[in-house]
Amino acid sequence: MRQNAVFYHAGCPVCLDAEQQLAQALDPARYAVEIVHLGEQPGRIAEAEAAGVRSVPALLIGAAPLHINFGAALADLR
Amino acid sequence: MRQNAVFYHAGCPVCLDAEQQLAQALDPARYAVEIVHLGEQPGRIAEAEAAGVRSVPALLIGAAPLHINFGAALADLR
Repeated sequence: MRQNAVFYHAGCPVCLDAEQQLAQALDPARYAVEIVHLGEQPGRIAEAEAAGVRSVPALLIGAAPLHINFGAALADLR
Repeated sequence: MRQNAVFYHAGCPVCLDAEQQLAQALDPARYAVEIVHLGEQPGRIAEAEAAGVRSVPALLIGAAPLHINFGAALADLR
């Protein structure tokens, strides 16, 4: 069974680089990666925050979020 | 042909989490991931630095390094 992973971003250049380099690099046989643009889906900011995401881009895979480089603080997306 | 990726870490808890969550999650059909412990292989710090790595854990995949969360600054490993 594939594990779900969520890549949160906000459309920034740092975010898009990370998406291309990382989110697309995960093993598709093991991970189902959902890409969420928080600028376009602000209703999901609370969900990201609850999962521990503090900035984007971030990859939620397993329990803890992985913050990748730094594009924008979650607080600045509200 | 598989692309090389290098995961640099320093044995810290943040590093090991990132390794388990991320380095092991890459698609093995497309990426050959080398794990480098800079605490045990200080001779490779210069190489990491030249690639743009500023802190560990970091994943070098493609041109730019992805800094994942924050374990330790590269400068503190010397």
